[in-house]
Amino acid sequence: MNGAESLLATMVGAGVDTCFANPGTSEMHFLAAVDRAPGLKCVLTLFEGVATGAADGYFRMTDRPAATLLHLGPGFANGMANLHNARRAGSGILNVVGDHATAHLQHDAPLTSDLMGMARTLSHWVHRSDTSMSVASDVATAIAHASARKPAIATLVLPGDVAWGPSPGAAAAPPLPDHDLIDNDALDSAARALLSGEPALLVLGGRALRATSLDFAGRIVAKTGCRMGAQFFSARIERGAGRVSVERIPYSVDPAIAFLKGFRHLITIETNEPVAFFSYPDKPSLLKAPGAQVHALCAPGGNGLAALEALCERVGALKAHARVEPLAPTRTARGAITPQSVADVLCAGLPEHCILVDESLTTGRETYALTAGAAPHDTIQNMGGSIGFSPPVATGAAMACRDRKVVSMTGDGSAMYTIQSLWTQAREGLDVTTIIFANRRYQILNNEALNMGAGNLGPKALELTSIDRPEIDFVALAKGMGVPGKRVATAEDFAAALRAAVAAQGPKLIEVVL
Amino acid sequence: MNGAESLLATMVGAGVDTCFANPGTSEMHFLAAVDRAPGLKCVLTLFEGVATGAADGYFRMTDRPAATLLHLGPGFANGMANLHNARRAGSGILNVVGDHATAHLQHDAPLTSDLMGMARTLSHWVHRSDTSMSVASDVATAIAHASARKPAIATLVLPGDVAWGPSPGAAAAPPLPDHDLIDNDALDSAARALLSGEPALLVLGGRALRATSLDFAGRIVAKTGCRMGAQFFSARIERGAGRVSVERIPYSVDPAIAFLKGFRHLITIETNEPVAFFSYPDKPSLLKAPGAQVHALCAPGGNGLAALEALCERVGALKAHARVEPLAPTRTARGAITPQSVADVLCAGLPEHCILVDESLTTGRETYALTAGAAPHDTIQNMGGSIGFSPPVATGAAMACRDRKVVSMTGDGSAMYTIQSLWTQAREGLDVTTIIFANRRYQILNNEALNMGAGNLGPKALELTSIDRPEIDFVALAKGMGVPGKRVATAEDFAAALRAAVAAQGPKLIEVVL
Repeated sequence: MNGAESLLATMVGAGVDTCFANPGTSEMHFLAAVDRAPGLKCVLTLFEGVATGAADGYFRMTDRPAATLLHLGPGFANGMANLHNARRAGSGILNVVGDHATAHLQHDAPLTSDLMGMARTLSHWVHRSDTSMSVASDVATAIAHASARKPAIATLVLPGDVAWGPSPGAAAAPPLPDHDLIDNDALDSAARALLSGEPALLVLGGRALRATSLDFAGRIVAKTGCRMGAQFFSARIERGAGRVSVERIPYSVDPAIAFLKGFRHLITIETNEPVAFFSYPDKPSLLKAPGAQVHALCAPGGNGLAALEALCERVGALKAHARVEPLAPTRTARGAITPQSVADVLCAGLPEHCILVDESLTTGRETYALTAGAAPHDTIQNMGGSIGFSPPVATGAAMACRDRKVVSMTGDGSAMYTIQSLWTQAREGLDVTTIIFANRRYQILNNEALNMGAGNLGPKALELTSIDRPEIDFVALAKGMGVPGKRVATAEDFAAALRAAVAAQGPKLIEVVL
Repeated sequence: MNGAESLLATMVGAGVDTCFANPGTSEMHFLAAVDRAPGLKCVLTLFEGVATGAADGYFRMTDRPAATLLHLGPGFANGMANLHNARRAGSGILNVVGDHATAHLQHDAPLTSDLMGMARTLSHWVHRSDTSMSVASDVATAIAHASARKPAIATLVLPGDVAWGPSPGAAAAPPLPDHDLIDNDALDSAARALLSGEPALLVLGGRALRATSLDFAGRIVAKTGCRMGAQFFSARIERGAGRVSVERIPYSVDPAIAFLKGFRHLITIETNEPVAFFSYPDKPSLLKAPGAQVHALCAPGGNGLAALEALCERVGALKAHARVEPLAPTRTARGAITPQSVADVLCAGLPEHCILVDESLTTGRETYALTAGAAPHDTIQNMGGSIGFSPPVATGAAMACRDRKVVSMTGDGSAMYTIQSLWTQAREGLDVTTIIFANRRYQILNNEALNMGAGNLGPKALELTSIDRPEIDFVALAKGMGVPGKRVATAEDFAAALRAAVAAQGPKLIEVVL
């Protein structure tokens, strides 16, 4: 057994059975070993940002890390933007990055770069394996970190000689201590706030947005009259008819401040207090009302479910009944594409238990609240703000849940960052319907220029926020990568296209022209 | 005047008049300022790897830096792979990276990341501007580094408050000292080697591959009987009929060792001694013959032209006549696509003084030597090894030289990394003909698995080196981004397609199916 074989045997033994890969020459021994690793599914991507985004989507749906296989510093670099998004979402990922053999590094060959420096910027755990004899235990440690309750981006650098040298065999992943004890002082403080009669908001993040946690939160709301909210972007929300709904704290600073204005207490669970996404002249970074108190009940990566259950008990709400969302009446969508008509299309067309990856940005911002009563589904959002997020994440979510349908909504500007995802969806026959809202511009920037007080943009600046020349033909792009597509411009046609897309298996694309 | 305006005025004043941009919210004041910066051309790209690659191509053709405008850590990260390639090629680039306002950073907003850590991995010079009052002098310093004889990747981080705060005005770029003195000991040593009668090789890199330098090198060859070679990949070579040709040292280890075997002396000019691109079990990293002596006449970034002229004089070759390449006879290309037929197509079809960006990898490896007698042209190659290189670099080279035709050859696997370049080519009406050699696989990996001694790859591994399922339709992709395309499968059709493509203005794509 060589080092690469011991690494793969360790991965498979620890349940890391999916690897999104962009291999190169330095990964040849890893490649040669995959056929001796039964149970390992390798998925080829055409660009590393697809691989890392897919691993993020995979984690969000399984709570288990997938691996990526990347090619030296530049390969890691191409994956970094979506690693940033994954890190912000608390997703665990095992990156295996091939590198030159140790003795070769000193000669500064063309692909040599500061790989360790790059890896450190986004990984919680980084290690360069020294020898083939111990690479199995190195990867076991990496997997333990990526699988921990507070999951890590764990990056293992695999030099050529470590891959091809001899190994004594696989290793087992060491258990890591679980730090999810409930902080009783925080619990007291949160309970006192809720029982004080002063207006309070539960701010939920992470796994506290799964249905079981939301049910506890909903009982607390029913009992105490507090409200509950999610950050504008969350890793995964279980929502829809029959579930407890959670409001979103608005994205823009002024509406967010207005939303939070009335609350004396913010009780944070698996998230931190709301902060502005960007900094603006003369606008604050922290969005809570002056004098409002933050009760950090459970830090990100903690056990929000246990914290909510304990809080529920502490405020005497265990027997309360959470309000669940009724099924939205089906409305026939007609006419122009608007937040309401998009919501009508989604409420009518989202398949039960689908996964909705929502990076619709400008178009979808107001749609979210209008789909609370759609069929039960999971919504996945971009917590890191690096666009080019949803096509890869949808790819990984579909790999993780082959029995569920995935609907991925994205803006045209965003989609072009990682459009190569479509090819992997076609290759693997993934059941993903990609919806491109094509407004032919980075509309968010036109809005933000005003928020920034940067004044009206002149013609040269507007050129930099506009992608209408030439118009991108997403149906042609999809065809080029083996995905059937359709262009629509009305709500009726959008509804029909979505119905048709989810009725059949396999990837599809709908370009919604605005 | 605000900080952003002072930054742009400084850029334009220093001659940095082209900016490849992917702006975001944090760059709004930069955007608002571009309409007040006459003489600045901003070019929108759909992905940051296009912006950085374009800046690389721009530098290679002008020896002057272009700017990029990038959006926080993830935007920089997306540009890193092509910054790696640019760094390896010795290209100077000014990166301006927007960031959160200084006071906002502490709140760890979603797009916050270790931007400075990322920037340090690939930049020679990095600075985060502290205040709008001094950002003009910061960017002036950055430009001085990017424009130095040994050009820097210079990265200036521009926090929001530095962009929108007040500024006293533009600054001038400080002159940097020029370290291109000739090392007389090295000159003596090189001259002695050349006059010793022992076999010697001039190894040329950087600007020593421009025609004027090659002419001096050719005279030294004529006088002393030495040979001259370039590394397998070079930043830019002026070549073709009527110029002095230079051989390439082979890419693969065994042929490279065979090539170098007979040389007792390697005289390096603007490059270092040849090293293996990758590390392989039981193969050396250094490729020169045992006992061969390396004479480092001029380091990378030095003045190779002056060194070659001095060496020419020292060995008494100033009056010698360099052998120049005769014009290759036009051969009608027929039949299958082979290295010879591709060369025939290029020799017949490359327009005079075109720029040939060559990332043809497997297909083109043997073609290069066969196009030495094509019409005079510049060849640009990928020195960093990170694929996804040629479409952006061709874009930047075409922006730099609006009066020249650009032909960009790339493999299908490589093209998919940065295919978004086509859109910018269409938007700017750039005269780029993109040739995709579509062999439907990462063929280089199949070859390399054997070189690696990794054995025959099994079916799962072969899936990871093959991109034939689904077949990518590059003509459809090009159409989707506004570029007319044509698919060909024979040398005759390729020749006709290239003729037609270069006869008309504007971007075109030819998919050559192998």
